[in-house]
Amino acid sequence: MFLKAPAAMSSDVMNIAKLAQGGSSEHQIQHRLDILKKWNFLPGSKILEIGCGQGDCTLVMAYMVGDQGHVTAIDPAPLDYGAPMTLGEAQNRLKQTPIGDRMTFCQSNLQEFLDSSASAEVYDYAIFVHSIWYLPSADALQPMLAALRGRTKQLLIAEYSLDVHGDIAVLPHLLAAISQAEFNSRGNALDRNDNIQSIISPRMISALAQKAGWEFQKEDIIESHEGQEDARWEVHRVLSKEYGLRSESSGDASRQGFANSLVHAVAESTRAIGPSPNLRTLPTWLGSWV
Amino acid sequence: MFLKAPAAMSSDVMNIAKLAQGGSSEHQIQHRLDILKKWNFLPGSKILEIGCGQGDCTLVMAYMVGDQGHVTAIDPAPLDYGAPMTLGEAQNRLKQTPIGDRMTFCQSNLQEFLDSSASAEVYDYAIFVHSIWYLPSADALQPMLAALRGRTKQLLIAEYSLDVHGDIAVLPHLLAAISQAEFNSRGNALDRNDNIQSIISPRMISALAQKAGWEFQKEDIIESHEGQEDARWEVHRVLSKEYGLRSESSGDASRQGFANSLVHAVAESTRAIGPSPNLRTLPTWLGSWV
Repeated sequence: MFLKAPAAMSSDVMNIAKLAQGGSSEHQIQHRLDILKKWNFLPGSKILEIGCGQGDCTLVMAYMVGDQGHVTAIDPAPLDYGAPMTLGEAQNRLKQTPIGDRMTFCQSNLQEFLDSSASAEVYDYAIFVHSIWYLPSADALQPMLAALRGRTKQLLIAEYSLDVHGDIAVLPHLLAAISQAEFNSRGNALDRNDNIQSIISPRMISALAQKAGWEFQKEDIIESHEGQEDARWEVHRVLSKEYGLRSESSGDASRQGFANSLVHAVAESTRAIGPSPNLRTLPTWLGSWV
Repeated sequence: MFLKAPAAMSSDVMNIAKLAQGGSSEHQIQHRLDILKKWNFLPGSKILEIGCGQGDCTLVMAYMVGDQGHVTAIDPAPLDYGAPMTLGEAQNRLKQTPIGDRMTFCQSNLQEFLDSSASAEVYDYAIFVHSIWYLPSADALQPMLAALRGRTKQLLIAEYSLDVHGDIAVLPHLLAAISQAEFNSRGNALDRNDNIQSIISPRMISALAQKAGWEFQKEDIIESHEGQEDARWEVHRVLSKEYGLRSESSGDASRQGFANSLVHAVAESTRAIGPSPNLRTLPTWLGSWV
């Protein structure tokens, strides 16, 4: 007997979901496939992935580059970071899959990695997929883009757009991102464990890439598909009791008033669109440079 | 020959516009009438208006309370503040109208005014119409609401909602308000001449009123009508070159990155809805207490 997949789910998604063994939802896999297919890289490509986290995107790329390709995935976060599975556990699980030898994980920041013997001379692609907003600020991105000059043939970046694209159901996600970025832009913020540290805009990313000597090739926008969980995750985080308490213990009064109003704006926009499954994730902006 | 007024414009708007002599647009008059009619106060009422500015709302109330009513309008701003007309010039002009004797303007903050001999024992209504977001923070509102206890029979507040009410054309105004409130929540911000100093939410206002001993009566929402200029004013301000320069000279790097992204979000949301006449002003929330 065959299990019937939802109409929208491709055989690629099913194959990758099987490899991920529940480590990544089908929606997350589909979203990463949507991004990577736009970039259309060739089988056999050598890819450097910056900010791989638990390896959700690493696995999808390893699947796509085929037997002759390879993904080197770096992230500076400690291997015991993350719950319910740590970074180290998740990465190890991916290494055990039948395509595990197409992936190499390194706990390293970009500059250290590029200076090390583990780094190839030149990669076909250096990619950032939803790792830009983990950076503390645009100031952290600038030297990374500069360091990649000459070390990769192409630079590919995918990050959320700040434009809701006319869809009111996306507004809570945008406001939740603004709220998290507000908290993490505080000089004295402790406990910076949000998924969103900064909301570096596509316009800012493009300006930084140009400044670092990259030549812009093209951009794209990918709408999130229904069911993609990110909006729900971020909105629930901002509306949680812990989030409010953490914010209150870190900041002066006028800033705290501003922060409270942002949380109220998230609550209002969420209430306005009804039950939480209706929350829609921000569109993703894609840029490529040579 | 008669000039034909737009269908939506009532004789009240036309009468008040004639009194205002161009000091206030018909859209602004209509909006204030929309608010005040919800509150339905009786002819002959004695009103204390807090944060009257140039007196746009003062004039509309003076028109509505009739011969036997009176509006005492206070604002702590210097009389030479404002352009192209100063506060003092605008208030003087209103005093010269046929209903000028129904209005008294005092340059004063609330506590000083209530302590002075100019203050009546008890007013029928104390009202704040779009003056809450001029306050630096919720901390400034709390003592004002407390000071009004026993000095007015009713407390009436109208301020923008943080909920766009499903209308994407309102988003640029919301984001422009967030951007201005971000700037003005900086401890070291100089040159605080924005129309929006803080975005104190309806939920916060209600909580403060309750804390000050006020009993909540009812709330309402008024949609802005098309043509109401506030969205356009605030968005143009945030997208102006001067605004960006001012922000850059006041703040640390991580905060400045956050501020830049907010401006980019305003730009994106504005571009997305087309030419600027399509920008729509935030709905207004109305609360009343006894």
